[in-house]
Amino acid sequence: MKLWQKDKTSKKEVESFTIGKDPEYDILLAPFDVLGSMAHAMMLQKIGLLSAEDLSVLRKGLKEIYLEIEKGQFQIEKGVEDVHSQVEFLLTQRFGDVGKKLHSGRSRNDQVLVDLKLFYRAMIRELVEEIQELFVLLQKLSEKHKNDLVPGYTHTQLAMPSSFGLWFGSFAESLTEDLDLIQAAYKLSNKNPLGSAAGYGSSFPLDRSLTTALLGFDDMHHNVINAQNSRGKTEKTIAFALSGLAGTLNKLAADICIFMNQQFGFISFPDELTTGSSIMPHKKNPDVFELIRAKTNQIQALPNTITLQLSNMTTGYHRDLQLLKEAIFPGFETLIDCVKMSSFMLKEIRVKENILKDEFYKHVFSVEVVNEFVLQGIPFRDAYKKVGLAIEQNDFSPNQEKVNHTHEGSIGNLCTSEIKVKMDQAIAKFEFEKVNRALGDLLIF
Amino acid sequence: MKLWQKDKTSKKEVESFTIGKDPEYDILLAPFDVLGSMAHAMMLQKIGLLSAEDLSVLRKGLKEIYLEIEKGQFQIEKGVEDVHSQVEFLLTQRFGDVGKKLHSGRSRNDQVLVDLKLFYRAMIRELVEEIQELFVLLQKLSEKHKNDLVPGYTHTQLAMPSSFGLWFGSFAESLTEDLDLIQAAYKLSNKNPLGSAAGYGSSFPLDRSLTTALLGFDDMHHNVINAQNSRGKTEKTIAFALSGLAGTLNKLAADICIFMNQQFGFISFPDELTTGSSIMPHKKNPDVFELIRAKTNQIQALPNTITLQLSNMTTGYHRDLQLLKEAIFPGFETLIDCVKMSSFMLKEIRVKENILKDEFYKHVFSVEVVNEFVLQGIPFRDAYKKVGLAIEQNDFSPNQEKVNHTHEGSIGNLCTSEIKVKMDQAIAKFEFEKVNRALGDLLIF
Amino acid sequence: MKLWQKDKTSKKEVESFTIGKDPEYDILLAPFDVLGSMAHAMMLQKIGLLSAEDLSVLRKGLKEIYLEIEKGQFQIEKGVEDVHSQVEFLLTQRFGDVGKKLHSGRSRNDQVLVDLKLFYRAMIRELVEEIQELFVLLQKLSEKHKNDLVPGYTHTQLAMPSSFGLWFGSFAESLTEDLDLIQAAYKLSNKNPLGSAAGYGSSFPLDRSLTTALLGFDDMHHNVINAQNSRGKTEKTIAFALSGLAGTLNKLAADICIFMNQQFGFISFPDELTTGSSIMPHKKNPDVFELIRAKTNQIQALPNTITLQLSNMTTGYHRDLQLLKEAIFPGFETLIDCVKMSSFMLKEIRVKENILKDEFYKHVFSVEVVNEFVLQGIPFRDAYKKVGLAIEQNDFSPNQEKVNHTHEGSIGNLCTSEIKVKMDQAIAKFEFEKVNRALGDLLIF
Amino acid sequence: MKLWQKDKTSKKEVESFTIGKDPEYDILLAPFDVLGSMAHAMMLQKIGLLSAEDLSVLRKGLKEIYLEIEKGQFQIEKGVEDVHSQVEFLLTQRFGDVGKKLHSGRSRNDQVLVDLKLFYRAMIRELVEEIQELFVLLQKLSEKHKNDLVPGYTHTQLAMPSSFGLWFGSFAESLTEDLDLIQAAYKLSNKNPLGSAAGYGSSFPLDRSLTTALLGFDDMHHNVINAQNSRGKTEKTIAFALSGLAGTLNKLAADICIFMNQQFGFISFPDELTTGSSIMPHKKNPDVFELIRAKTNQIQALPNTITLQLSNMTTGYHRDLQLLKEAIFPGFETLIDCVKMSSFMLKEIRVKENILKDEFYKHVFSVEVVNEFVLQGIPFRDAYKKVGLAIEQNDFSPNQEKVNHTHEGSIGNLCTSEIKVKMDQAIAKFEFEKVNRALGDLLIF
Repeated sequence: MKLWQKDKTSKKEVESFTIGKDPEYDILLAPFDVLGSMAHAMMLQKIGLLSAEDLSVLRKGLKEIYLEIEKGQFQIEKGVEDVHSQVEFLLTQRFGDVGKKLHSGRSRNDQVLVDLKLFYRAMIRELVEEIQELFVLLQKLSEKHKNDLVPGYTHTQLAMPSSFGLWFGSFAESLTEDLDLIQAAYKLSNKNPLGSAAGYGSSFPLDRSLTTALLGFDDMHHNVINAQNSRGKTEKTIAFALSGLAGTLNKLAADICIFMNQQFGFISFPDELTTGSSIMPHKKNPDVFELIRAKTNQIQALPNTITLQLSNMTTGYHRDLQLLKEAIFPGFETLIDCVKMSSFMLKEIRVKENILKDEFYKHVFSVEVVNEFVLQGIPFRDAYKKVGLAIEQNDFSPNQEKVNHTHEGSIGNLCTSEIKVKMDQAIAKFEFEKVNRALGDLLIF
Repeated sequence: MKLWQKDKTSKKEVESFTIGKDPEYDILLAPFDVLGSMAHAMMLQKIGLLSAEDLSVLRKGLKEIYLEIEKGQFQIEKGVEDVHSQVEFLLTQRFGDVGKKLHSGRSRNDQVLVDLKLFYRAMIRELVEEIQELFVLLQKLSEKHKNDLVPGYTHTQLAMPSSFGLWFGSFAESLTEDLDLIQAAYKLSNKNPLGSAAGYGSSFPLDRSLTTALLGFDDMHHNVINAQNSRGKTEKTIAFALSGLAGTLNKLAADICIFMNQQFGFISFPDELTTGSSIMPHKKNPDVFELIRAKTNQIQALPNTITLQLSNMTTGYHRDLQLLKEAIFPGFETLIDCVKMSSFMLKEIRVKENILKDEFYKHVFSVEVVNEFVLQGIPFRDAYKKVGLAIEQNDFSPNQEKVNHTHEGSIGNLCTSEIKVKMDQAIAKFEFEKVNRALGDLLIF
Repeated sequence: MKLWQKDKTSKKEVESFTIGKDPEYDILLAPFDVLGSMAHAMMLQKIGLLSAEDLSVLRKGLKEIYLEIEKGQFQIEKGVEDVHSQVEFLLTQRFGDVGKKLHSGRSRNDQVLVDLKLFYRAMIRELVEEIQELFVLLQKLSEKHKNDLVPGYTHTQLAMPSSFGLWFGSFAESLTEDLDLIQAAYKLSNKNPLGSAAGYGSSFPLDRSLTTALLGFDDMHHNVINAQNSRGKTEKTIAFALSGLAGTLNKLAADICIFMNQQFGFISFPDELTTGSSIMPHKKNPDVFELIRAKTNQIQALPNTITLQLSNMTTGYHRDLQLLKEAIFPGFETLIDCVKMSSFMLKEIRVKENILKDEFYKHVFSVEVVNEFVLQGIPFRDAYKKVGLAIEQNDFSPNQEKVNHTHEGSIGNLCTSEIKVKMDQAIAKFEFEKVNRALGDLLIF
Repeated sequence: MKLWQKDKTSKKEVESFTIGKDPEYDILLAPFDVLGSMAHAMMLQKIGLLSAEDLSVLRKGLKEIYLEIEKGQFQIEKGVEDVHSQVEFLLTQRFGDVGKKLHSGRSRNDQVLVDLKLFYRAMIRELVEEIQELFVLLQKLSEKHKNDLVPGYTHTQLAMPSSFGLWFGSFAESLTEDLDLIQAAYKLSNKNPLGSAAGYGSSFPLDRSLTTALLGFDDMHHNVINAQNSRGKTEKTIAFALSGLAGTLNKLAADICIFMNQQFGFISFPDELTTGSSIMPHKKNPDVFELIRAKTNQIQALPNTITLQLSNMTTGYHRDLQLLKEAIFPGFETLIDCVKMSSFMLKEIRVKENILKDEFYKHVFSVEVVNEFVLQGIPFRDAYKKVGLAIEQNDFSPNQEKVNHTHEGSIGNLCTSEIKVKMDQAIAKFEFEKVNRALGDLLIF
């Protein structure tokens, strides 16, 4: 059954090729399709295209389906083209002609668009919650290890004293900054496209402000062509946001893989969190972080995968857009997994103590010594030369016990609470509770 | 001359390979390097590492160099490694040892970082101003052509009535939304990295809040490792923002190239804005928009070019980061050019009138007719079937004069002023005047 | 059960995260794992690490498993880590300790590598066979429609006369050229990595030439580090090859989508091969080709997805490599589908006749007229000017009946058989029958 | 002056935007433009469109210009659109109307295409010659250091004994394999597009086999549409080939950066080949290899940059194609530089001796010990367990003096000469001397 079917039947090869992996992804859209239909129905009634009675039947029917979805009892039946058809089919089957009236004033184009936006909003929220959890853990680890010094590297060369407090804390702050791109993606996802129909609007006097409010959208895409063109653009923006966060996790994973190398040996994990080798009995491999590194690369490839589908394309819906689901849906899942797994592993991380007391690392204190000379009044460039010569002549033995850094964001002043404030502010901007309220109102009647 | 040079000289092949195209880009950083140094000097004096007298000499000297840069009299001399060395070299040459004191408490790493942030801030501002101009023009064209109907396409097939008002307006609204990513990029550019030194902070009691305020930054990267890691991340985020905007222009260009095709023939430009063929005397080619399409693809390739340089890399500075300039500096220039050229061309666009009155396009009115039936009480799915059959039996002759769309964002209700408000709000969030004020204060003394 | 397991158990979260989607892909490797093990076992016996009796048991056991795989009776049991473990587990379960001897002199690293190479070889062969079929069809269509003229475009503007013969033929020749990249990918896939163990070889006196011959490989990766590093490099090269072919299909699809647009109207397909709209009863959409366009973009994104996983990585196995399966395995499937579906659709393509006789297209003949003047002795630049003026003065009426192009590869001389020879030569270079022979010998004993 | 100019002048903004960076790249095409014109002229004379006298004048004139180019005396004058116009302009200026006859039977489209193909052929040759040099050096280093053991890593964890002989040799063999993609790119570059005119052929009886032979092309693109569509496809294929090689150099650079880290400390370079730090006097940074790593990432980004420009585009020339020069021309230069610089640096590499004798590395010998047990008759899985337990109980002290690997491609059997044969065969397939001969004949008359 296809909604657009006249009296010719598609060949089964065409049907199978065009449907593709949609059923797998569409099932995730089901609850949002019902929510979108509820809002659409309420609006149709308000503008006189549905009677109050029709609306009452439809709302009840839609809620029934919503509950079935929640209980896992909903499926897209064989021969039914997509989730939208399945919902309409159930309504018509159960309540007759009133089901057929629901599609007035909308097209599958804006219907799927609104489903996607609602789904993305929900996924972003889930992602943000996982980020928050990882953030809290990183800050805790940062405070716990603020006195555990470790070499800082530039050019992968030993450079200056750093600390695990600084290192954990850097990822915490990075997460707060990643939320800006995620916020931009959320804003674009949080705009109502409903009423744009096939991308050119409708001759019905739709009340788009009403559906915007009912679905808890922050705003609408006013211009209907722009609403349609937001398909693809929304996914691209989300991919950017995911890629931004993926970059932070990728660096964390890259650091951990090298820190676990035996010549570094700075950190370790309990045996049951590492893996072995089929021929080398001594191995304890950082597979989880290698896979986080690789999975975050999959995510970082998404913006390009999506851009290639969109570029050089003219205004208006193209079937090509369907395939974006195959990029962005697993993208959310993969990245949320990576955040969760990072938290799961970091809970068990073990940090080696007293690393920098080893004579091997004495050169990382060279800048400290240069700076001491400067504080004694020697111009920087001259102090630099002096210490450089001492090192070349093997006549350099600094104090490797502690460093005295006091400025904002340094080893001795991690600004943990300032960074916490940033995170709180970034989260607050999402106003997730606004969406909660609206969807609650829609469902509880 | 190299700041880090001890008593061995690099081979000239190494020097030439490592310097690369830097001089070409570094010259653009010169004014920002001076501004950063001014703020750094003022801070050093405040924490007692420079005397008031030293500061007075340095500030005067830096201002002198700033004015030389503005007059185009500044250059990176042969044998001088980079812009930072050149500025320091001039100071030392002119004022003696005090020039050597300036580098206390900073590294080239945070020095170049602060230069880059200030430069990006300025480029983003320039870009935003060009966007604003294009936006105003698009809205003007949208209002001017609100009654000029044109077919709307889905699947590149004739679909429904659209209008030039709707089409121009769609790009105007798209621009307002592109500003969210640009805002995210601006926020990350607008954070002070100064004081992070080589990425692990300093043993000097630097006052990072002071330099943050002096340079008009909105905030600082607190954690010094995170500050260092923001190199690369900032460029990646900017590339996302540029790519977002590029996507909008790319679609505009793609539409124009097809609308100028003779079988469409919807728009044209004066002869002096199109180009001809070396063997086909009848050609009027849309080269400018083909090149905008291609250049926006160059921009859309940037996120990936940058991500490839960053991925799988550990914490801390790597020389690799230098090459990001080669991606992002021309990226700004190219995209600003594309926005400007879009405005330049659109000022002269000519739109064909009465397109939809042609019998050829009558099918685009089919939904209008379906909807009329619905308004008469026929369920949608039945009306759809009825009109479908009429079309198949060649018995369909709709009114092609006008369409009556009234809802928000539709042909008859373009929401031009609502969209204008969105743009104004988006621009206001940048608070460009705050930066102006701070930099003004820094220079005028 | 894990081959490398000592006496600690991985947490189930780690296990589930690290196994990921492997079982889904590993099942495809099963027959190749058995083939690789057979060759390895024969080699072990030859160098004295297995007795003749052991070999006989193992060969029989492996053949048994191979037949079970062919019948679909093989599966990776719950708790078994991967396909390699499953095969070894079955052998040990059925034949005892001899199963444990099979892993001597190899690591899972070279074991999976050889499985992958054999699998890629088989997939490339399947792809090439589908290309051949499409090629034959395109040449048939080219000959059938060699007299059906159609406009040729440059800058998406009407340019010169072309023909459907030329157009179909262009894709046929493009396919012959795509085979060069596919050949390069095949060559890299057709090199034996077995014996490289974990990437650093083995202290056993392995006979790598023997396994090379037994498995029908064309050559071996001699250097064992290079063999290991070929993981990733092979996938990247395959992705290039797939992307090359995808480019050809993408252009074919892009052309078809625009040729099916009503203003072009050059080609059509039977109704049952197009799709309709949920609100526009007149639509006949080219969904299949839109999806081919989109799917070939998924393929064109693969090189980058893979490169991101590999770049900046040091020598030696990293767990990251596991995820390449998720890119390249579905890549083969998707692209083979696209080739098949192109053939399926093109069998039914309908071409409009006499397109160029329409007065609307007369300007495409301008170069013909210029050239006639040249043949009469007028210098080219002057003839060009003359015709240009005639067109501007609306005084141009060429003969639109036929064109007389005779040179190689032109409308009147399609070189169909020359291009056929190219294809035959390109196919012959794969020497697929050599592989057939070797694998046949391995299995039939 | 523009060849296609009628009587309207382009606005200077349009001119400047459309010309872009072309003059910078076009100058590189100048000698090839002359060669292409020579062959075209000879062909025109053969088919009667030029008199013998005209040809004689043109050939002489073209050779004159060729020599001026070689002496660096050629430039594209202000106001002249491109290199093609400049050459034609000089001919007409010097020899009158005969210059105007040269453009008969060709378009700028096939003219620039043939220039590009000839240029790419020459650049690929230059690249291959640099690869050869690096290959020879790597093999020399491999033999020199065949007894210098070093740890081999998997998962960045100490794994098994490796050697510098093996490590250098791995890159040598990798280069031989990279030549397959380069060969594929060369093949596509080595096909004659001349005669395809604007992509739809010509009504002149062109003799394309003649120009194919005169220019030393291996073959022609027969189908003229396919010839035109090879623009872009050729660049994409070249980008693949460059990216393949870049992958090899990227891994070499990544290895070197980590091997130079102090905790590894496996290799070093003379001071004058490393760089220092502006604040840390002890630093010796691997900047050259960091930049090779970064530059090879620029190269690895090229395939995508080019694909984005080409995807979703219909058949026929689009102005977009012009911008591919900005990707591929510097791509060649950058990668050739990286190969050269790798050779330059590796000539001076110093390798640490006796690394593996350090007790710290004893675990890398665990597989050796397992294998010894196996050779004594203990089943592999049992031997593995035994050694694993010894390691856990800290009761493992292997012989760290030497390893005894004998199979092909292992530490003790590097197959240097077998790999050398591969390289020789790969180079021979290019048949560069064939091109030499043809171009020599064209110029010497």
